[in-house]
Amino acid sequence: MSNPVLVEVMRGQLVESRHHGAVAVCDADGNSALAIGGVTAPIFPRSAVKALQALPLIEQGAAERFGLGNEELALACASHSGEDAHVAGVERMLAKAGLKTSDLRCGAHWPIAQSAAAAVARCGGPTALHNNCSGKHAGFLCAARAIGVDPADYWRPEHPVQRAVRGVLEDFTGASLGEACCAIDGCSVPTWAVPLRNLAHGFAKFGSGRGVSAGRARAAARLRQACAAAPWFVAGTGRFCTDIMQLLGQRVFVKTGAEGVYCAALPEQALGIAVKCDDGASRAAQAVMAAVLLRFLPLAASERAALERFVAPVQRNWNGFEVGQIRITAALR
Amino acid sequence: MSNPVLVEVMRGQLVESRHHGAVAVCDADGNSALAIGGVTAPIFPRSAVKALQALPLIEQGAAERFGLGNEELALACASHSGEDAHVAGVERMLAKAGLKTSDLRCGAHWPIAQSAAAAVARCGGPTALHNNCSGKHAGFLCAARAIGVDPADYWRPEHPVQRAVRGVLEDFTGASLGEACCAIDGCSVPTWAVPLRNLAHGFAKFGSGRGVSAGRARAAARLRQACAAAPWFVAGTGRFCTDIMQLLGQRVFVKTGAEGVYCAALPEQALGIAVKCDDGASRAAQAVMAAVLLRFLPLAASERAALERFVAPVQRNWNGFEVGQIRITAALR
Repeated sequence: MSNPVLVEVMRGQLVESRHHGAVAVCDADGNSALAIGGVTAPIFPRSAVKALQALPLIEQGAAERFGLGNEELALACASHSGEDAHVAGVERMLAKAGLKTSDLRCGAHWPIAQSAAAAVARCGGPTALHNNCSGKHAGFLCAARAIGVDPADYWRPEHPVQRAVRGVLEDFTGASLGEACCAIDGCSVPTWAVPLRNLAHGFAKFGSGRGVSAGRARAAARLRQACAAAPWFVAGTGRFCTDIMQLLGQRVFVKTGAEGVYCAALPEQALGIAVKCDDGASRAAQAVMAAVLLRFLPLAASERAALERFVAPVQRNWNGFEVGQIRITAALR
Repeated sequence: MSNPVLVEVMRGQLVESRHHGAVAVCDADGNSALAIGGVTAPIFPRSAVKALQALPLIEQGAAERFGLGNEELALACASHSGEDAHVAGVERMLAKAGLKTSDLRCGAHWPIAQSAAAAVARCGGPTALHNNCSGKHAGFLCAARAIGVDPADYWRPEHPVQRAVRGVLEDFTGASLGEACCAIDGCSVPTWAVPLRNLAHGFAKFGSGRGVSAGRARAAARLRQACAAAPWFVAGTGRFCTDIMQLLGQRVFVKTGAEGVYCAALPEQALGIAVKCDDGASRAAQAVMAAVLLRFLPLAASERAALERFVAPVQRNWNGFEVGQIRITAALR
């Protein structure tokens, strides 16, 4: 059974491309508030769960011990664009724990931000610091240091830090994460496949603090507060996660993952949202997430207008001419 | 009705993403040799028809008059990667017709090739020459010069060059191209929506020279010969179209288009192929095209092995670890 088409990409008056997908919205008790498409099949959330992967950093005392502030905690939850302050922030995290760039095991890639990529090209090329996951990896390293284990293999599934991450993911999502649902992420740490409904439930708990221990709820609140205070560090200039959290502050935590995933928490509504575009397209998952936020959040007119631009972005070509528009389908309205 | 899932992207042991799509294979009389999914709905072929868009350049005498060689004709059919020799080739085309970079109206974007983008960053940033369509645009400009019309508005639908292109597209595909199926391409020229079956028929005619005038057949043969002789100029280092034509020479003409399109001609079989991935993903359209080539071309064992690597490419992460594989589904086997 195919998931429904949720997004159409128009060129002129015709639909040029279409994106199938699924959406789950749950409350903190796991009750479904919205389910479109298959929400019980495991999907890889990829970077959309970085905030859950960063929880051990708080819980095991690393953030406090190394004096990590909002920007650094936001970087631990980030898929950053590799802009200068992102890179400087990750270097600072490493330095605070007595670590260095060569301890990062995420691999190097060109900065997501074109301007940053051009700047890096002029200075020789990217390092692991420019990898969008470098803040998460720095967080893992800090966590390893704080619990006094050798940080060398921090990225392997059997390392205490990754085992702690797996425990957090199971606790929040209620999913049992065995080897059959484990794969390797782009940055080499394990990624665990979890049904969309469980991810939505997990983010309802992450946003509300309900259904987890008091200490875990406090750690989650600390990360949400850090991301709301420093949303630019979660993504970067012109990126959706940053723009939404800048617009709505603590009312939304939202995070993208590779291959068309978005997860979000609405703390005031105690709701969690999880979106997967079947084909992995971010442009579609983003429009869907914006549409779901519009539906479940009480918004001022100006906030509504800002979100509507993400639901139906105009498509322009290299000359800036309007060539089409993205739109959501009736399945989502 | 949804098109079937043609491609799955595996991560570890699970399907992470899936791509729906359609495929048409036709002979030069328009008989269907293969039809999967919807082959009668108009789709935008985008850059996959650049060779048809370049035909007036030959037919109207510009190629001969300005002494355009294989590399330059291949560039007129190209979505090039913006590498040094691509840029130099386009500059040469313009110079031969007494034109300059500022006459190009395709807009500027960063080179597709990362190495070229890094080099361009060190020299200030991209120009219209780096646009993957700059060779096509230089071809339009040369064609306008050759027929003695003002080249200034060569990109507008009503310009004689674009009207000639539209006539060529109608002649080859048999589709009637009215305003309702016209939109603006990424580089600002018109793009005309054509059913997949008509595109396949058009490329069977393009490859075989059957069903068109003798002059048009000669012009098509000249472009195919140029692309087979200089396949690097049709795309670039490590690109699918280049690799396939380097591997198979004149036995295949293949060209990608934005939003998940591929068209190909098999001259010896007098077959044409057209592929559209519904969601616009190149990775899927490429695997599908490779699978269709494997099915319809007689191949040596080494050629077969090379094509099979494109049908089921291994996916690696930033550290080079194998994280999964792309595979075609039973719908295509």
